[in-house]
Amino acid sequence: MNTTMTKRRFLQSVGAVAGVEAVYRTMEALGLSGIGTAHAATPELPAGSGAGKGIVILGAGISGMAAAWELSKAGYHCTILEATGRAGGRSFTARGGDVLEETDSRQQVDFGGEDHLYANMGPARIPYHHRTILGYCKEFGVDLEVFTNDNRAALFHNRDRFGGEPVPGRRVMTDLRGYIAELLAKAVNGNALDSELSGEDKERVLAMLRRYGGLNPDHLYKGSNRGGYRGERINAGLKAGEVNDPLDFSDLLESDFWRYKLHYSQFLNSNPTLMQPAGGMDAIAKAFEQRVGSLIRYGSVVTEIRKTPDGARIVYRNARTDTAEAVDADFAICTIPAPVLKDVPNDFSPQTRAALDSVKFVPAVKIAFQARRRFWEEDHAIYGGISWTDQDVTQIWYPANGYHRDKGVILGAYIWDDEPAARFAKRSPPERLQAAMAEGGRIHPGYSSEIESGVSRAWAKVPFQKGGWPESGGVPEALTRPDGAIYICGDQITALPGWQEGAVLAAHTVVNAIGERVAKG
Amino acid sequence: MNTTMTKRRFLQSVGAVAGVEAVYRTMEALGLSGIGTAHAATPELPAGSGAGKGIVILGAGISGMAAAWELSKAGYHCTILEATGRAGGRSFTARGGDVLEETDSRQQVDFGGEDHLYANMGPARIPYHHRTILGYCKEFGVDLEVFTNDNRAALFHNRDRFGGEPVPGRRVMTDLRGYIAELLAKAVNGNALDSELSGEDKERVLAMLRRYGGLNPDHLYKGSNRGGYRGERINAGLKAGEVNDPLDFSDLLESDFWRYKLHYSQFLNSNPTLMQPAGGMDAIAKAFEQRVGSLIRYGSVVTEIRKTPDGARIVYRNARTDTAEAVDADFAICTIPAPVLKDVPNDFSPQTRAALDSVKFVPAVKIAFQARRRFWEEDHAIYGGISWTDQDVTQIWYPANGYHRDKGVILGAYIWDDEPAARFAKRSPPERLQAAMAEGGRIHPGYSSEIESGVSRAWAKVPFQKGGWPESGGVPEALTRPDGAIYICGDQITALPGWQEGAVLAAHTVVNAIGERVAKG
Repeated sequence: MNTTMTKRRFLQSVGAVAGVEAVYRTMEALGLSGIGTAHAATPELPAGSGAGKGIVILGAGISGMAAAWELSKAGYHCTILEATGRAGGRSFTARGGDVLEETDSRQQVDFGGEDHLYANMGPARIPYHHRTILGYCKEFGVDLEVFTNDNRAALFHNRDRFGGEPVPGRRVMTDLRGYIAELLAKAVNGNALDSELSGEDKERVLAMLRRYGGLNPDHLYKGSNRGGYRGERINAGLKAGEVNDPLDFSDLLESDFWRYKLHYSQFLNSNPTLMQPAGGMDAIAKAFEQRVGSLIRYGSVVTEIRKTPDGARIVYRNARTDTAEAVDADFAICTIPAPVLKDVPNDFSPQTRAALDSVKFVPAVKIAFQARRRFWEEDHAIYGGISWTDQDVTQIWYPANGYHRDKGVILGAYIWDDEPAARFAKRSPPERLQAAMAEGGRIHPGYSSEIESGVSRAWAKVPFQKGGWPESGGVPEALTRPDGAIYICGDQITALPGWQEGAVLAAHTVVNAIGERVAKG
Repeated sequence: MNTTMTKRRFLQSVGAVAGVEAVYRTMEALGLSGIGTAHAATPELPAGSGAGKGIVILGAGISGMAAAWELSKAGYHCTILEATGRAGGRSFTARGGDVLEETDSRQQVDFGGEDHLYANMGPARIPYHHRTILGYCKEFGVDLEVFTNDNRAALFHNRDRFGGEPVPGRRVMTDLRGYIAELLAKAVNGNALDSELSGEDKERVLAMLRRYGGLNPDHLYKGSNRGGYRGERINAGLKAGEVNDPLDFSDLLESDFWRYKLHYSQFLNSNPTLMQPAGGMDAIAKAFEQRVGSLIRYGSVVTEIRKTPDGARIVYRNARTDTAEAVDADFAICTIPAPVLKDVPNDFSPQTRAALDSVKFVPAVKIAFQARRRFWEEDHAIYGGISWTDQDVTQIWYPANGYHRDKGVILGAYIWDDEPAARFAKRSPPERLQAAMAEGGRIHPGYSSEIESGVSRAWAKVPFQKGGWPESGGVPEALTRPDGAIYICGDQITALPGWQEGAVLAAHTVVNAIGERVAKG
């Protein structure tokens, strides 16, 4: 720890005096820059290739800082304008004492001071194949630990199915597999698929289905010990008892589980292994800030984006002095989210403007609660993972850290559908907490009595963000091309909206494009 | 760290002077004993109820130490006879400098000294529902982290399928789901299941299958982005490309994957979340040893188990002095594994003898390798989890710790089938490493050049163990009843063979049985 602090202070002082390129060269010399082999297509602009070229970057989020870091290494002179007083953008980890501002509210976080008591209110997980952001974690020495999406002890809750009782994931998943295997085995045995399967294939499919679904020798699904044994113990214990009866197939079909919740961990960005930085997602943003912090002008609210004969001019209000200032640069990289950017006076082409207008952001809401007791572990053997409900709160996340310690911070709501998200965003912060506690109580009886404090984030009402991430549906072509000397950047120009991987991929793309343009003269 | 050491030393000194009951009372007074709410049915014998009663415990593994700990808290006077110089039994974590002895070989572990360079050669994971051992982790302050069984980046390898190429789990699992859903949808659409499903049910099942399998609107499986995109990037990146072609259905059916490997994480003891102690599984054994170490007589090889009019008499050879010694006690708790126990001269009843003879242990083999480079992360984006092969080594485990650090220890083989296990056990330790490296090279080209050192453990040849765990198939009734004053104990008397949960459950059962017997007088 002390070594790190010393290195960090040393590098910061190098940065303050001699610039980011010097920091990078110093790190290289100290053997600290890492080999970054987990990287995919990291820009490798020739050293010094950016000498004499100025870049202004709008937004000190992950994308803006990654662009600044890569360009600085090649000798570009970068300036980052950040509207708020904090780097990281949507990568925000809430801890005790933090203040969360929305357009019409202000919340102070009241979590305890222990290192496991935090909530990632923006990005919160990194899939194994997000190689570029993982490469930065490796390069920067950000410690990683496993994040659990798929926990079979976590619960599925549908108010009007299964008597309104939450059901453990192991039972729902096991039983659905069992029923599917049984139905298919019946069809195969009834010769209904003879045009699809040869006699030999039929035998193989039947043998496979018995194992796939946990069927009995008659190819019937009568429950399976995969779904657990009756009673508190779940496992076989001293002597295997009776397995749980299968859940009712009609209830399963009439629940909302199968629409996507049951298959969630099959999706490419949700399937294991997922990682998180130890101590909070903002460890990545902080690692970038450590490297490019000297380039950031905090409290700089962009008011005009102009094209000039030689590049771009960005006018901004310095919130500290309340004066208008401007930066002229050869190129501008604009990571401001489309819902905010479209309202900044600009010289964009009609195509760019139309494209920005067309991008709709998801009004995501997250609510985090500090619990006085890790009741999910103690009472339900839930270690991390996600419970699902058909109520507004949609999900409850159990912390993937601090196992067995005192207290814990859970995510009491993660809402992304327009209608419930709007409902929650409209409420005052205390009303949001009340509503989420009431809904959580239907999944965990006594829920509200376990909760000590909470905080919410309605991203649609967060200044300079106005939303969580672009709805999927394709990136407008115009946003992927420079508009004069101005490059739109951020996860909003990628097929990974809302992911830090998208943010750094976008940065690399823009950096490479600028590098090529400069090389051509 | 220093605080812990101080507490530990303090408690050890209390133990040496005043016994284990005093340690427990001191811990309680210091608020260190924990509430243990993750426990299930922990014995709660009345304080002092064991005063004047002597217990001799055979084996300082998890079961023996748990029994000693619980009995000591109630005032019983316990003596643990341990044949080796180490506590923990099969819970053994190999680190640099350790020496592993088998009946005909001796290996010194040559791993580096960093804290992530170790291999759990015995138990290595704790399912979330193993509440009793997790309860001890909580009570003893053993830090936990997630162990990954199911990693969709890990590989499935069948020498004569898919051109002998390993295939990532995400593709195999996605494609099998897809084909199953497509076949069932065809049967439903062809009215083959009309006797099973009403018209409304048919529509619901079809809608469910589209989501379940990632089918197209025509209910056909044509591949899915769940299995990843073509090329190195895996995810959609800047712009979603083409998804991978589905694997050949015949190849899937003719591979050995579906027999159980593909469903592995569905099994109750394999499904997420699983945990491991940070720094090595032996943290649990060490925590027990910290509490009951003063009761253990190391190097005590049991040579006779006798019934006496007042209880039991255990004769043992003191390996340090090479003299015969004996302990008389009111009760004996015998955790010695059946394959060893049956050959110790004893006064057991014919029923007990027959039962011991009938228990066959699995000849499990584990091989661990230290790699100079975390090639699984760097080259394959594999963070923890297990690859499968139809070769002898069966599995390769990637470490669930030390992510992105230098070097790493993988498990290069985990073999439990009799025939390949016997083949490996017969080889000398260097021959085992060679064979495992050759097989691993078919999964990871260049494998052997990445490996710096290795160590193997053929449990069938480990003195005082003679096997990994009892084959499943039910515990002989005779082993679950006392034979006079002698109680057979250990995971071998439970339906959780080979699991530490079984070991502590068995201990609690025996402790409760003794407690009741003493209470009745």
